[in-house]
Amino acid sequence: MIRLSVPDPLAAGAKVDPSPEQARYLTAVMRLSVGHALLLFNGRDGEWRARVDQVSKRGCRLAVEARTRDQAAPPDLELVVALVKRARLETIVEKAAELGGRRVRLGTTRRTNADHTKVTRLRAIATEAAEQTGRLDVPEIADPERLERLLADWDPGRRLMFCDEAGDDPDQDWGGAGGRARPAVQALEKAGLGLGGWAVLIGPEGGFDPEERARLRALAFVTPVTLGPRILRADTAAVAALSLWQSTLGDWAPG
Amino acid sequence: MIRLSVPDPLAAGAKVDPSPEQARYLTAVMRLSVGHALLLFNGRDGEWRARVDQVSKRGCRLAVEARTRDQAAPPDLELVVALVKRARLETIVEKAAELGGRRVRLGTTRRTNADHTKVTRLRAIATEAAEQTGRLDVPEIADPERLERLLADWDPGRRLMFCDEAGDDPDQDWGGAGGRARPAVQALEKAGLGLGGWAVLIGPEGGFDPEERARLRALAFVTPVTLGPRILRADTAAVAALSLWQSTLGDWAPG
Repeated sequence: MIRLSVPDPLAAGAKVDPSPEQARYLTAVMRLSVGHALLLFNGRDGEWRARVDQVSKRGCRLAVEARTRDQAAPPDLELVVALVKRARLETIVEKAAELGGRRVRLGTTRRTNADHTKVTRLRAIATEAAEQTGRLDVPEIADPERLERLLADWDPGRRLMFCDEAGDDPDQDWGGAGGRARPAVQALEKAGLGLGGWAVLIGPEGGFDPEERARLRALAFVTPVTLGPRILRADTAAVAALSLWQSTLGDWAPG
Repeated sequence: MIRLSVPDPLAAGAKVDPSPEQARYLTAVMRLSVGHALLLFNGRDGEWRARVDQVSKRGCRLAVEARTRDQAAPPDLELVVALVKRARLETIVEKAAELGGRRVRLGTTRRTNADHTKVTRLRAIATEAAEQTGRLDVPEIADPERLERLLADWDPGRRLMFCDEAGDDPDQDWGGAGGRARPAVQALEKAGLGLGGWAVLIGPEGGFDPEERARLRALAFVTPVTLGPRILRADTAAVAALSLWQSTLGDWAPG
């Protein structure tokens, strides 16, 4: 069944006018007509069954009928990702929505080529992925900022899973609070869920600058992890890390 | 450093003539000239440092110098994937190479639209991903076959991790050897590594036909698993499942 994210309050008997793009999708692409059912959510009121109530040349109107699911808070997991090439960044945003990330933060690093991206387009991708994956909210996509600034302002109660592409070089003593990077599942089990939530950090293609990396490893809220012996592209690392987090500390773990 | 997969035997002093495409990549795209170093592997002899020995209009010749890594067998993990749309299938093959799959088998199912794909193109993608990810072999890409046939000929010593998109419907008793689908990590820990290797099965977009699904769940070598409460696209499910397998039973697990 079609699911749409809408900004409107949802309650029995409410009428919702979808955006022009959504109306076109419903009537022209999916060819819904009066009486057809669909599902709506707004991130606050749960999921509701609605029906097409009116169709006109200017758009359509939906009538909200009954709640199908209660609103539920997903695990408190965010993704911090360096700006990578557009296609891979779009994939990462899509995957973060499927894998239950609450928010995606975009960071520029020393080895990041781009310093801006089309955030509006990323928000549309996140919305569409949220509609298709069955979640009841749309992940927030924050405007890009410098990674240094983002870390300086970091809430120290939130742990940061740093996917350290360079892994454990036995000839280097990275020191710092994090110590040696462990395999991701083991590191997450040891760190535990905590009270302030988690974020996953994915670096740029080519990795972090050595100084950035040493600084990250020295931060008390950082848990460095390894993702196996092979080099992963940024989108692969993002999906792997989010899946491992959900399986260890999130809503894929045994109840 | 550039890594190339070649069919030639590799030993100190050997000369290797890369394919015309590889020669063009080395000299025209990457602008290597005589004396530049690169790495070679062939899936048998480990990884070797080589240098550009000659460049001509017709191609180039490489001189093999010294072994940099011994050949090592990756974990015995295969991927069985239903033919999905071309772009997603190409992504899945790329990811299987990055995540250490030894072989990718392509299956047609009742809900598969396509019954063929450009296997040559998938092999090129697997080779390029293997070169970039640092592995010492290229995953084999098998020609498509019907999923029914593939399962009928299955080596019962190899376990099959069935990512059951439909999850656990408490109103259905799927019975069979597999019993209820568990969260993936828990199911893999319970099943253990075994002696005959593993494969991951990813279904078509839209899932398996109910009859196919019931038959899969009844097979003794099948371990049904769930990948969380949200609906995942096929490429997301493939990366998640391969990562969870590597983290639980493969070479991402603590040594």
